[in-house]
Order: sequence, then C-alpha cells, then structure tokens
Amino acid sequence: MANAVKEAWKAGKAVVNGWLAIPNAFSAEMYSKCGWDSVTVDMQHGVQDYLSCVACFQGIQPSGAVPMVRVPWNEPGIVGKVLDAGAMGVICPMVNTAAEARALVQYSKYPPAGTRSNGPIRAGAYGSSGNYQKTANDEILVIPMIETKTAIENIKEILDVPGIDGIYVGPSDLSFSYGKEPKLDVEDPEILAIYDMLLAETGKRGIAAGLHNGSPAYANKMIQKGFKLVTIANEVGLMCQAATAAVKAARGG
Amino acid sequence: MANAVKEAWKAGKAVVNGWLAIPNAFSAEMYSKCGWDSVTVDMQHGVQDYLSCVACFQGIQPSGAVPMVRVPWNEPGIVGKVLDAGAMGVICPMVNTAAEARALVQYSKYPPAGTRSNGPIRAGAYGSSGNYQKTANDEILVIPMIETKTAIENIKEILDVPGIDGIYVGPSDLSFSYGKEPKLDVEDPEILAIYDMLLAETGKRGIAAGLHNGSPAYANKMIQKGFKLVTIANEVGLMCQAATAAVKAARGG
Amino acid sequence: MANAVKEAWKAGKAVVNGWLAIPNAFSAEMYSKCGWDSVTVDMQHGVQDYLSCVACFQGIQPSGAVPMVRVPWNEPGIVGKVLDAGAMGVICPMVNTAAEARALVQYSKYPPAGTRSNGPIRAGAYGSSGNYQKTANDEILVIPMIETKTAIENIKEILDVPGIDGIYVGPSDLSFSYGKEPKLDVEDPEILAIYDMLLAETGKRGIAAGLHNGSPAYANKMIQKGFKLVTIANEVGLMCQAATAAVKAARGG
Amino acid sequence: MANAVKEAWKAGKAVVNGWLAIPNAFSAEMYSKCGWDSVTVDMQHGVQDYLSCVACFQGIQPSGAVPMVRVPWNEPGIVGKVLDAGAMGVICPMVNTAAEARALVQYSKYPPAGTRSNGPIRAGAYGSSGNYQKTANDEILVIPMIETKTAIENIKEILDVPGIDGIYVGPSDLSFSYGKEPKLDVEDPEILAIYDMLLAETGKRGIAAGLHNGSPAYANKMIQKGFKLVTIANEVGLMCQAATAAVKAARGG
Amino acid sequence: MANAVKEAWKAGKAVVNGWLAIPNAFSAEMYSKCGWDSVTVDMQHGVQDYLSCVACFQGIQPSGAVPMVRVPWNEPGIVGKVLDAGAMGVICPMVNTAAEARALVQYSKYPPAGTRSNGPIRAGAYGSSGNYQKTANDEILVIPMIETKTAIENIKEILDVPGIDGIYVGPSDLSFSYGKEPKLDVEDPEILAIYDMLLAETGKRGIAAGLHNGSPAYANKMIQKGFKLVTIANEVGLMCQAATAAVKAARGG
Amino acid sequence: MANAVKEAWKAGKAVVNGWLAIPNAFSAEMYSKCGWDSVTVDMQHGVQDYLSCVACFQGIQPSGAVPMVRVPWNEPGIVGKVLDAGAMGVICPMVNTAAEARALVQYSKYPPAGTRSNGPIRAGAYGSSGNYQKTANDEILVIPMIETKTAIENIKEILDVPGIDGIYVGPSDLSFSYGKEPKLDVEDPEILAIYDMLLAETGKRGIAAGLHNGSPAYANKMIQKGFKLVTIANEVGLMCQAATAAVKAARGG
Repeated sequence: MANAVKEAWKAGKAVVNGWLAIPNAFSAEMYSKCGWDSVTVDMQHGVQDYLSCVACFQGIQPSGAVPMVRVPWNEPGIVGKVLDAGAMGVICPMVNTAAEARALVQYSKYPPAGTRSNGPIRAGAYGSSGNYQKTANDEILVIPMIETKTAIENIKEILDVPGIDGIYVGPSDLSFSYGKEPKLDVEDPEILAIYDMLLAETGKRGIAAGLHNGSPAYANKMIQKGFKLVTIANEVGLMCQAATAAVKAARGG
Repeated sequence: MANAVKEAWKAGKAVVNGWLAIPNAFSAEMYSKCGWDSVTVDMQHGVQDYLSCVACFQGIQPSGAVPMVRVPWNEPGIVGKVLDAGAMGVICPMVNTAAEARALVQYSKYPPAGTRSNGPIRAGAYGSSGNYQKTANDEILVIPMIETKTAIENIKEILDVPGIDGIYVGPSDLSFSYGKEPKLDVEDPEILAIYDMLLAETGKRGIAAGLHNGSPAYANKMIQKGFKLVTIANEVGLMCQAATAAVKAARGG
Repeated sequence: MANAVKEAWKAGKAVVNGWLAIPNAFSAEMYSKCGWDSVTVDMQHGVQDYLSCVACFQGIQPSGAVPMVRVPWNEPGIVGKVLDAGAMGVICPMVNTAAEARALVQYSKYPPAGTRSNGPIRAGAYGSSGNYQKTANDEILVIPMIETKTAIENIKEILDVPGIDGIYVGPSDLSFSYGKEPKLDVEDPEILAIYDMLLAETGKRGIAAGLHNGSPAYANKMIQKGFKLVTIANEVGLMCQAATAAVKAARGG
Repeated sequence: MANAVKEAWKAGKAVVNGWLAIPNAFSAEMYSKCGWDSVTVDMQHGVQDYLSCVACFQGIQPSGAVPMVRVPWNEPGIVGKVLDAGAMGVICPMVNTAAEARALVQYSKYPPAGTRSNGPIRAGAYGSSGNYQKTANDEILVIPMIETKTAIENIKEILDVPGIDGIYVGPSDLSFSYGKEPKLDVEDPEILAIYDMLLAETGKRGIAAGLHNGSPAYANKMIQKGFKLVTIANEVGLMCQAATAAVKAARGG
Repeated sequence: MANAVKEAWKAGKAVVNGWLAIPNAFSAEMYSKCGWDSVTVDMQHGVQDYLSCVACFQGIQPSGAVPMVRVPWNEPGIVGKVLDAGAMGVICPMVNTAAEARALVQYSKYPPAGTRSNGPIRAGAYGSSGNYQKTANDEILVIPMIETKTAIENIKEILDVPGIDGIYVGPSDLSFSYGKEPKLDVEDPEILAIYDMLLAETGKRGIAAGLHNGSPAYANKMIQKGFKLVTIANEVGLMCQAATAAVKAARGG
Repeated sequence: MANAVKEAWKAGKAVVNGWLAIPNAFSAEMYSKCGWDSVTVDMQHGVQDYLSCVACFQGIQPSGAVPMVRVPWNEPGIVGKVLDAGAMGVICPMVNTAAEARALVQYSKYPPAGTRSNGPIRAGAYGSSGNYQKTANDEILVIPMIETKTAIENIKEILDVPGIDGIYVGPSDLSFSYGKEPKLDVEDPEILAIYDMLLAETGKRGIAAGLHNGSPAYANKMIQKGFKLVTIANEVGLMCQAATAAVKAARGG
C-alpha cells in the first residue's frame, strides 16, 4: 500500500493531480488514464457525494493514479467514510487553526495517533496483504487547505501539528478572504508573497505545499517555484474548454 | 416545437452537433452550453441507456441545443421511448435496405404516416402548447445511418423512402465494410467518392447528409463540402485529449 | 402465489389499477398504498426501465397490490426479465395479429405452454413455497393491448389464442389508428361500438377486458359497462392535476 | 441572477412554494411546471440527499420556478454544496438562537459577509454573465426555521442578525415544542398568537415570514394574514391524496 | 409499530442481527429473508449513504426483520433522516461520554424527551395507524456504541443517561484503543473482563448489551454469556467467504 | 488483450466462472477477488441491465478475472453494447438453430466475419495498445446456450457454425424442455447422456463445453467429466446460503 505521491515527495518530485467533479465512474475511468500521478474526487465544490466518490475510486483504480479526496468539510463521519473507501489522501477545506488541523489528524489516523474507527471496507481489500491497519497512518496523506487570512495568521501552529503531510492552497478563497477578487492563477504580489512564505515554512518542516491551478502553464511555473502537488482545473472544465474551442473551429472560427 | 435543426437545414445552413457518451446529467448540462446547435445522446456506442438518456435530455434543455439520440438499434420499443422522452431527431445505426428505412419511419411517426404509439410523457410537456401530436411527424428528424457497402448499394431506394429527413455517415463502419481500416476523418479516395455520391443523391432529394468526425478541422472541411450535420468526437474524447495535453504541459513537456 | 386480480375476475369483480411513470421506489411505495387492486409499471410510455421496474416492484410489495408491468414492446428478453422480477401480469402494447399474440404467450409461459426460460430470481423468492415454476403459467396474466384497426380486424383470432387472460384497450392509439384525435375517455360512437364488440367477444370466451382511462368518473362508468380492469391516468398526472389546483386555490383562484 | 422570490417580496407579494420529497428529476420536472413561484427540495424530511437535490434542480430549471432547498441541518458542508448546486434560497431547520442564525449566515455568504467557499460549480453557470460571486450575497435568501419555544423566546435577537431575509415557520414542530399535538393548519389560539407576533416582528424589520401548510385553503388564509412564503404539503402528499380519491371515485364511492 | 427487538429483550431473548454493507435494495431483500431478527444498514463502515439506506429498508421490509441503522456519526441531521426513513433502532459509533449519549438521545426522540423534528415521511406510513409520533419515543431503540477506553472509563454515566435502550460493543475499535490489534471474536482476557463488566452494568439497569462478531460460533457463545444483540460479519463478508470456498471446492481443493 | 479463458482452454484447462446477479459495482468488486478465472454478468435472469453491467465490469477489473456477460436475448443492440463495454465473452440464451447461432456470430464479430459496429468505448481503452479492433474477433468468446430439445436436435449444425468458441448448457431449461423438473446438478440419465453427446461433439470440433452448476462438488465432478467452463450458482445465492447457515449457527442450531 505504498503511496506513490508520498514516494514522489520523498524523491523531491512534484505531483500532477487530476480533479473530479462529474459523479460518474466511467468518466472518472477515462480521465484517470490521461497521465495523472494522482486524481482527487472533489466532494466540496464538485457534484460528488460519498457513493459517487466510491464509484470514481473504482474508475480511478486501473489507471494506477493515487486516489485522493477533498472532503466537503472537516467532519469525522465523512473523513472516516472516504478513508474506508480507499482514499490515500484527504484534502480538507478551510482549516484555519491548529485545533482544526489537530481534529483533522484525529479523524484520519488510527489509534494511538488518532481516533479513526476500524473498518476499511474497500481500502482494506487493496492494502498491503491484510496489513492495511498497520500502514495506513504512515501512507495516507493528511492535507489541510490553507485558504483564509486566519489560516495564514495561524500558519506556524497549523504546520507544527504532528501528522500533517502537506498543505493545499485554494487561491480563490484565499484572495477572497483578503478582499480581492476570487480567482485562480493569481499574479497579485501580496498573494504571491504568501506563496513564498508557505513554501519556506513547509520546506523547513519537510512537508509539501500544493496549489489549485487554472492552467497547465501556471501549474508548471508553480512546480518550478517549489509546489509539490499541482492540480489543473477539473475534468468538466477541461471538457467545456475543449468543446467550446471545437465548436468554434468546426464553424471555421 | 419548431426544430431548430430543421430550420437551419431549410435555410441551407450546416449544424454542429455534440455527442454524449457519459451517462450523467450534470456532465451533459455543462457540455451542452458550449455552443452546439444540437446534442445527440449516443445510446449505441456511448455508455448510455434509456434513463441516462432522459437525464441527459434534462441536462441539455437549458442550453437550447436540439436534443437528438442515436438509438442502439432499429427496434420499435426503444425508438418510441426516446421520442416520448423528447428526442427531436433519431439517428439509427446500420440501416442497409429500404425495408429497414421504412421500418424506422414507421416506428418514428404517428398514424397515418407510421405506427408510433401515443404517450409523449416528457416530450408532450414541452411541445407546441399541447399540440405535440399534430406537429411531431413534421418536426422530428428521422435519420438512418449509412455505414455499410450494402447500404451504399441500396442507397437510392433508401433515400426514396418517404419520411427520411437526412442520412448520417459512420466513416469507421463504412471503411470497415469496404475492407479498410475503421477510422474517422477519412482521406481514402474511394470513401471520399462515396461521400460525393451521397451529397449528390441527398441533394437531389432535398434531404441532408451528416457525418461523424474526429476533429473540428475536418468537420469544417466537410461543411464546406456540403455536409449539413457534423459531429466532432464525443465529450469524453474531448475531455481526455484536453487532460492528456494538460498533464504534459504541467510537466513542462 | 395466488393472483388477486385473477381471483377478482373469477368472482366477476372489476379491478382498479394504478399506473407508474416515475422511476422511483419511494414514489411507487407511497402511491401503491392508496387503495389500488393492482399497480402497473409502465415501461412503454412511462419513464421506466428494467431496474426502475424492479425498484417499483419493491415499493409496491408492502401495499399488497398486484404488481404488473406494461412492457415496452413484444420482445422476449424484456418479457422474461420483468416476469423474473416478479410481475404477476404482462400488458403488451400493439398486438395486432394472432401470431403476435401467440409470440407473447410463448415468451410469458414456461414449457410446455411456452418457451420462457427458468430463473425467477426475485419472483421465485415470493412464490408459493418454492412452487413458483408450477403455478406461474396459471397465475400470471398475459394481456395483449388492442389498440389498432388491424387488431380489431383480427380480434377473433387474437382472442382465440390459448393463454390470453384478457385484453387491454389503449383508447388514444385506437382512435389514432381510426384517423381520430388520440384521446382517453372517448365518447365517439364508433369507438364505443368497438368497446361493445370487445366486451361481447371477451365475454364469450370468459376473458377480461381492460381499459385505460383519464378520469375516475369515466373509469367507473366503464366498470358498469363491463370492463374488468380500469386504470386512471398515472401517478405523475394525478400529482400534476392536484398541484395545479392547489397552486390556484392558494392564490385564491 | 435576479431572484424572483426576492423581487416578489419587494413588491409586497406572497410567493406560493412547492416542496419536493421524491428523489427524482422527472417527477420534479413535471411538478415544477404546475405554477409555483418557487420549488424547495426538502433534504430534511424529504427522501432527498445532495445528488438527488442536484437532479431535482435540473428538473426545476425549465419551469422558471426559483429553486430553493431545506437543508437537513445547520452544517457548513451541506449549506455550501447546495448553494454551489444552484439554490437561490436556503431554509434551515431548528434555528433556536442568534448564534445559530449567525452561523447560518456565515455558511451562506461569501466574504466579507460570511465564510462560504468559492466554487459555484453549477450555480455559476447560470449566474449573471459570470458575475455570480458579486451578486450571490444579495440574491440568495437565507431563511432560518422558527419552530421551537426556544426560538420564540430568542426571536428578536434572531431576527436582528444581519443577512436574514426571512423566517420559515414549521407548525408541527412548533406545536410539539409547546406540548401540543404536532400538526399543520393550526387553529390553536396560542400558536396563532405566535404567528401574529412573528408577522409583526418580521414586518418591523422588513423581512418575510413563511409558513408550511397542509391545504391550499389554509395557505390562502395565511397569505391574507401576511405570510409571504406559503408551501402546500409536498408532491408525494398531493399525489397520494389525489390517488386515494381517484380509487374511491372509480369504485363509485 | 411494536418493535420486535424490544419485545424479544423484554422476554429475555437474544436477537440475531444482520449487517448490510452493499448499497443495493435487491441484495438487501434477498439477504433479509435468511432468518434474521433484525437487519442493520451500516452507514459508518458499509458502502452506504442515506438513499441507499432507504432502498435497503424497502428491501428489508417484506422479510419482517426489524430495520435498524448504524449512523456514520453522532450528528443530528443524519439521525433524523434515518429515523424518518423508518429505522426502528439507531446504533451510533464512538459515544465516549454521557454528554455525547445525551445528545444522541436528544436527536432520536420527539419532545419533550428530545428535539427530533417531526416529519416521518416513510416511517409514518407504516406506524401504528397514524400513531407514529405517539409511540416512536418508546419503540425506537437508541444504542450508543461503546468502543474506546474513554467510553469504558465513563461507562456508568453513559449508561445512566435516560433513553438509552442498550449498548453495542465494537470489539476491534475497543481493542485498538487499548493498544491491542483490532479484531473481532476477541479472546484477550482484558477485553473479556470488560465484556463482563458491561454485561453486569447493563444488567443492573435493565438495558441490553450487543456485540459485533466475526463468526456464528463466537456469536452463539456470546449469547450464552448474556449479550442480547449479536451481529455476524456483514453480507459481503459472508458472500466472499462462501465464494472463496466454492472456487476452491470446484477446483477439487 | 489476450483472453485468459481462451488460453486456459488451449492449454486444456477448465475455467471456474463466477456469476453476478446483484447490480452493484462494490459487490462485484469484492466477489471478483475470490479466485474466479472469469466472472459473468447475468443480464438474463440476474437483476442487471446495461449500465449495471458496465459498473460490474469496473468492479471486476482489478481482480484480473475475465469479464463476460450473459445477454438477455440474441439481439444485436445489446450484444454490441456489452462488447463495447469490455465483455471478453458473450453467453447467449436459447440458441436453438444454426441460423440463430450465425446471427449471434454476426452481432459479435467485426467485418468481414460479422457486422458488429465499430466503437469500443470502454473495451478499446484496455485493448492491446490501440489494437483492439484487430484482435477482438479472435479473443472474444462467442458462446451460445444449448438449453432446449430443439437445440439438441440441431446440435451438429449449430456447432458447425464458424466463430462459435464454445457452448454453455443451462440444465434447468434443458430439463424443462424435455418435460422434466427444471433443476441444476442433474442426475437424470437422459440428461447426462446429452451431456456426454455434447462433450463428444464439441470435443471433435475443438470447442469448449460449459455448464451451469448449483454446487461446487457437482461443478468439480463436471470438470472431471470434461466441461471446460463451470459456474457455481450466483453471488446472491452463495450469500443467502451462507447467511441462512450463519443465523442457524448463531442460534446454536
């Protein structure tokens, strides 16, 4: 049950991550085969719930991409359920304080590191020859989202919480909370300075920084900058961009 | 219940058509808003069945694109069901003889033109102020696929069948049946000569010729050539092409 | 596995039948508890397919109403599947000849009466203490729809086909095929004369005549006339009538 | 993205609201076309979850009725998800204190008014030409339910919370919490006096009062009294009432 | 709406309980007919959500087994929803303190015993001739899970909370929290001593103790010991054990 | 895209085959990991349709078992769709004549061997590095069911049809058509003599004979006898047998 994202990070490599908003296993299956290192089911803003997440995980599996999830909220019931379903990483929105980060770790780890309940119904079937419970705490990534001014103010305490493997930056919420327009692929210097700080602070602690991006070019630039987990839009966004361009081209435009 | 595809054809215009393989209403909804004149649910080779077709039709509706369907086979049960669900056009695979074309017309039209059974459960709710049954025979397009050598040999008899509004060419099956490699965006002269013949024969009879394409550029070329209904791949294909390119670009490739 | 509809008919009573167009088990469950003798899943014009039919059957079961189905077409695959799912009656659209009626009987009955394949996966679980296969041919109703001029012309031969338990009249298709407006609750004398003939011919042979109705009042009149299976609109129609009236009344209209 | 309910309220008009308990898009689609000003998906007591809510929203859309939702509980994850799906109003059960009302507002509004996370995956596709984020805080209705003795005791503080657009009264829970039988269409003087107080207090603050009703006649009376949002039972209730009456009438009862 | 589990307990009998992890009504239907006294939908570790729970309840109903649910977490929204769907017992994971137990009781009972909101959409349809609200508080079982060291330390206060009908022991989480390997069918003396203590303390208070088991033999031993609610694995586990054995036997192994 | 079943047959080995009646991907996923060589989705008597078949195929994939399907009927639409979904074998019920066998081959093979339409939407994604169309005719198994007296009378002509890879015997239908009780694990000498004849005739032609069995012991005996494809009941049957035994054992029975 070695987690290829964790191994990439150990080797100093960045991970290119897909993002699933369409609640359908076939769509997930085809999309996952496009070369991603990991694919994340977005249960917060995507059109996803628990059962569609399970279906997407089944779709992801043949591709070999690492299945992760963004949970809708920092709530123990859903964190436990997606881990049992086989998530190898949990990205959690709106973690603003060390207490919230500690809660997330608690929900995500088996005793004694946390309070996750035992019963990995689907995850256990694929884990290390029956050894899932012994390796889960080490292999599964716990990744709070840093996306508010409050979180930035509390960043050191958050990053010091044991069990945090990385952070994930939501640029549009972060901009929003600083009174700026919510958008991806930010060029605003104040926000970029925050990125630098986050890269420095995560770097000191040996944990990874991730970023949500709107375009491959920006994602690539951010890899150069030091981000270790970069996502490019979501599958429905890529599809609609491609479709809009195709219609225009077919019309000779 | 005026059919915008029919109106475009009357005005001599070509129609750019989308193609749905993903059995999901949300995916259909987003894709349909990308500028298509019509969107077709592919029940033959797409991952679709009757209930997913209904869901996709609901997804298509707000876009204003004309909802059509490719049925899995020339069978009266399913033709009736998709029409009742609101299909404004039926594309039927593998129509090889005039008898098969006549059967398709029978299944698709109310008496006296055909034997379609009355009960347009969803279609009637959106049709011409309760006038659905009076306009359906005129407005709904009946489009046999021409995609075998046998069909080409019988083409005049097929095109002479009353009630046929157009034909739709499946290039890969057509190539296959001529002993060639099955592919889209064909440049084989023998196949292109068949296209010319089909455009000439349909033109004489005032009916439209449609073509399945793999790329917008080829589709545009075919519009120039005279095709009146051009499809570009399907939504899952566009998504995967875009995703593969995005992964590569994010990696700096 | 005694069929309460069959027993009612033996006792000379008419059966009031519900009709399901909404593909949902909860909706079916609540509707079925409203007093119907039988409830039919409409796979022809309703928004239903095989799996939604199974779900509706599960919803119907606690009510004690007899589960029946209108199949989308006279096709052996689907007839077998709905019987295996537990249908106690099969209403089949557009049976126009004795040959078609014989085919329907073949698909619906185990050998030697027919060619139904053995495997009543859900039906067997509720049948006569493991005796399903021995009683199915007797208990399950085979009911062709009589709804075209052709069927009327062939009516005696159709009714003489062994294994037919009743007929079901589709008034709107019948009117349509006679060049009249397709509608329920017909008052046209020519159609009413056909009803009289059908009641006479079925009466002679000891089989039941059923009718699709638009209103309870008309259905009651038809019971008086001799019809033994009367349906009133469908659940979505009743809901929408009630909702429209409720909105109006709430507005003081 | 103008909200027609808000506009009606500005014009002093009452809104007649539908209520969806059946988790099905087709059912929602047909019901929504019956004349309602708004239609609410009931995720608390209805048989609904997040994905069925999305499906119902797609069903509601062609009708032009304003899509709203009653969330199952005052929890940030689900409030965010239904807003992203396109809810134009959030009705939240069991809001008993100003703190709970403030939390609801926080979950429902973008910064700086609240902490809603940005990502209106379906909502954004229909909002004000890409302007969704700028208008959402103004246009989306935040409506706590007032349905306990505690809430009545705290009513002024609750109503003073900035961002509250209206309240919605649950008569059966309110009666229950006062030790009375839980029922709709209440005639109990103590409860009616509470209604008067609520109309007076909301009136002072220029916000709307809504009420759940069991019958159109009572709803109409409540409109006369000053309620601005009246719901009549739910779709499954209307369907079952109509079905029970139809069965009886067909039997000549 | 008498609860047969409660009656069995009053009569001093133990109840054999099934456990559903597969989110499918047909599977639930067949499994429920195998002789269980009660069948529990496992929303915590099973592949279940709210709508699949409703579907499973519909599948359970014809069997006469008492429908119960293990909720994913001690959260008022989901507790209310599964009760409205017809759960006759709520098993809640990870109840560690009296406060948590009191909260669970609050969520599960109508006023004045608790704060459950009125609207038993499916439950009410099957309850005591419209008397559901009057009997629900008495008939529906509230069963906190005791599965951590903290819970054991607080056990007397937890058991003293009014409204608790029984407890349910999760052996693998309990072992885990004591630093032991998480497993069922425990033979560890320290854990067995805890079982003895729990049987003694529940016995004193006249409430039942339940246990999750891995094998029928162990379950039977625990019935002898005094447990009143014993579960044996889940349906997918039984299926896979049986399938593995069948494959081996077919190969002559 | 080498077919492991075909390879086993070439090596003279028998294949142990699973059988899926539950329309659920998770159930299929867990069951498929139990050691089967192949797993067949039963669309005829199982509670399966096309979309549940796709879901089950996704569930089967990680196990490495060969995915096959029993289609509901010998109909070109559904045969094409399940092949496109990735079936590596098609078992077709009730093939009684050489003409029916030839039709099945036609539906299952690409030109020039047949008339299958090109578009392997899911199958192509896993086939031989883009070579699916070139290998499909060779690798995909076409297996008519021999299960009637008529089929036995026509057996030589059926087996001589080019493209037939094996036959599959349905013992209960076969017994039924000979006027015997429909059952599995037959000991009737007349039927066993037919098995001998079938083994001899298939052996002469180098094609495989398969058999549906009720118990592993009988299946093993049939492997000894020469059958090359043996199925043991279905997953729901195994589950219910195991559950019934577990309940009994837990009660000390």
